[in-house]
Amino acid sequence: MNTMLRTYIYRSLSEPVVQQLLARNTDPSNAVQQSVTAIIAEVKAKGDAALKAYAQQFDGVQLEQLSLGAEEIAALAASIGREQQRALEIAFANIHRFHATQLRKERTVETMPGVTCWREPRPIEKVGLYIPGGSAVLPSTLLMLGVPARIAGCKEIVVCSPPQSDGKINGYVAYCLQLLNIDNVYLVGGAQAVAAMAFGTESIPKVDKLFGPGNQYVTKAKSVLQGMTQVSIDMPAGPSEVLVIADSSANPEYVAADLLAQTEHGPDSQAILVSTDQSLIDAVQDALATQLAELPRAAIAAKALDNSYAILCETTDEAIAFSNRYAPEHLIIEMDEWEPLVRKVSNAGSVFVGHLTPESAGDYASGTNHTLPTSGYARSYSGVSVDSFIKKITFQHITQEGLQNIGHTVEVLAELEGLHAHKNAVSVRLT
Amino acid sequence: MNTMLRTYIYRSLSEPVVQQLLARNTDPSNAVQQSVTAIIAEVKAKGDAALKAYAQQFDGVQLEQLSLGAEEIAALAASIGREQQRALEIAFANIHRFHATQLRKERTVETMPGVTCWREPRPIEKVGLYIPGGSAVLPSTLLMLGVPARIAGCKEIVVCSPPQSDGKINGYVAYCLQLLNIDNVYLVGGAQAVAAMAFGTESIPKVDKLFGPGNQYVTKAKSVLQGMTQVSIDMPAGPSEVLVIADSSANPEYVAADLLAQTEHGPDSQAILVSTDQSLIDAVQDALATQLAELPRAAIAAKALDNSYAILCETTDEAIAFSNRYAPEHLIIEMDEWEPLVRKVSNAGSVFVGHLTPESAGDYASGTNHTLPTSGYARSYSGVSVDSFIKKITFQHITQEGLQNIGHTVEVLAELEGLHAHKNAVSVRLT
Repeated sequence: MNTMLRTYIYRSLSEPVVQQLLARNTDPSNAVQQSVTAIIAEVKAKGDAALKAYAQQFDGVQLEQLSLGAEEIAALAASIGREQQRALEIAFANIHRFHATQLRKERTVETMPGVTCWREPRPIEKVGLYIPGGSAVLPSTLLMLGVPARIAGCKEIVVCSPPQSDGKINGYVAYCLQLLNIDNVYLVGGAQAVAAMAFGTESIPKVDKLFGPGNQYVTKAKSVLQGMTQVSIDMPAGPSEVLVIADSSANPEYVAADLLAQTEHGPDSQAILVSTDQSLIDAVQDALATQLAELPRAAIAAKALDNSYAILCETTDEAIAFSNRYAPEHLIIEMDEWEPLVRKVSNAGSVFVGHLTPESAGDYASGTNHTLPTSGYARSYSGVSVDSFIKKITFQHITQEGLQNIGHTVEVLAELEGLHAHKNAVSVRLT
Repeated sequence: MNTMLRTYIYRSLSEPVVQQLLARNTDPSNAVQQSVTAIIAEVKAKGDAALKAYAQQFDGVQLEQLSLGAEEIAALAASIGREQQRALEIAFANIHRFHATQLRKERTVETMPGVTCWREPRPIEKVGLYIPGGSAVLPSTLLMLGVPARIAGCKEIVVCSPPQSDGKINGYVAYCLQLLNIDNVYLVGGAQAVAAMAFGTESIPKVDKLFGPGNQYVTKAKSVLQGMTQVSIDMPAGPSEVLVIADSSANPEYVAADLLAQTEHGPDSQAILVSTDQSLIDAVQDALATQLAELPRAAIAAKALDNSYAILCETTDEAIAFSNRYAPEHLIIEMDEWEPLVRKVSNAGSVFVGHLTPESAGDYASGTNHTLPTSGYARSYSGVSVDSFIKKITFQHITQEGLQNIGHTVEVLAELEGLHAHKNAVSVRLT
């Protein structure tokens, strides 16, 4: 079982090799594309009936009803331990505290005397949250999507999660639904769930925007649906990844633990160590071997280590330069002198600074969102925030004075673009 | 030549009819899809050579070089009239004044003692702006995309615009390039332009995000490229549209002029009048006939009027309810009592309130952006703003005290999700 990270010397890397190191799989196989397309067509054509058939086929459950209501959710929520309830409450509170600062009134601007412009936020009315289930149980993802949706003020929050073998949902997820005051959940998983929310079915409402992580089928379905319907999506998603920048001040046990936390997600996860200190890299290799041996998911983590690597740099500027080119979903800077590096980070989803800031804190409870751009999309996408659940609508009002000030300019510009009716809309008001 | 708007009585409309009225063409024909796919493949395979071949084929120009530099831009810019320069300067100043308020520092949040979280904006480093040309000349679009890109601080702003018959670009566009301090423009149009910026060619840099309107080929190419590469796009684009809400206080001449300003864009544009006053609708019909007769682009406008319609409502609440379902790109509220309606607008791209606020003011010079969601996408998309050119990266730092406060919660949550390496990343730091 592999416990070692391949190591490269940064300055010895040719550009083609760097390109290979930067690349990660973002394009699921055509087989995925085909079965997803078939599922989408089936859901569009048959609605609820298709969803029940897929529940039988994929989840091995015969569903009488496709949803659970407030009473059933309450019963499931009551079944979990008090310690777990308390932990979910603390995570909820921190996520709410951080995201609540993201919705702010903007100031009105008078661009010319009598010409007043402003923006006002409006919630996206209907949003669909996909919460993966089955083997992995992810109540944290429900909090990460539900809290900003509530703060934004979305009118309708539709939640889909695959049914467990008993035809219900996990109690931790149920408890989070209660924390979010969501009194309904749909027992649908996979590509069929996002298709159902994009088209709407007899029981599942059509939404304006789809959120949530998922396997490559869910991911592919989201991008296909974005192209064929009016639904928009939070972001394209790929396998999770972390890049750790560490120098001689770093604790190799901490670094190894952070790398392994990423690798246990799945065999296609990627964990990258960029360091200015060969002896730290060596110490991390030893720590990886020791810690990996004790992991329940060691087999998965070992596979992920095969996709992973370490890079030895001469300077921290080289390290940050590589990180910015890679644009990691998660960036951990384990250095005493992390502060000067903050402003140099140009591409990353979420950044963890200092020796005592593990990624897992942000994955669960520190308050930041864990729905983040992967596969290099951090170059152009932000992670999920309240912004993801609102539109900003521009408004403007022009007075008589304002029209006198701006009218001629508009007429000249409309004229030079050859749009005479645009010009006339001002002219009729000036006369 | 049609000069009349079909008129419907809101309360007499069945839901299926409403659905038809809300629907607009968002799905270009498969023929478009096929030729766009071919163009994309050709550009990816042959780069600059393909671009020069398409310039010959589509623009009828044999290009020696694919770009113009600072000197050539300066010469073209100097060729336009002073009045036009002045108008472009005023538009630039107003757009800059409004958009400059959109980039603001956010406050740091201590979610728990010792757990500090914050967001910092970072520019998207490489952006591609597509500026349509040829028949229509759109310097205003260059300002609407270039100004927020400059405010965001994008490092590389790549501009593509189709060559005119003389192998150059229009002088007004050149003058805007100067105002934006952009000293290079690529002479490429259509689907091949966005493909070139998505893949990069020998002369055109690869970008992280594509911006700009265009015909259905450009629009289709953007969505195809979004699916097949890592490039992201500003928004899906469809034909332009306006919805006017007017009551008995409205001036029918103004309303007609605003509707016609929309219809001159193209035969597939849509202009909708929603009113509580039948006599206003009648007066607008008369004004449409008179004003249309004097328009150079009357033929196009008349075609667009065939896709357009008027709706008579009993109350302004009905009017705003229909508007919110339609989610117009542009909404003009021509009423004395517009203020109570502002907070009721839930879906729109940009809103113009009062009798003296024509859409054309915002199209050119008031300061708001004219790159807006069409075809109902205003339900989930905002118009272009500085936000469109940045990412917001989350950062966090945890102290020893913070780790004591949050550590156990993270361990419990990682445990219940079965992610033991996530738990261990905290445990190693607690011991």
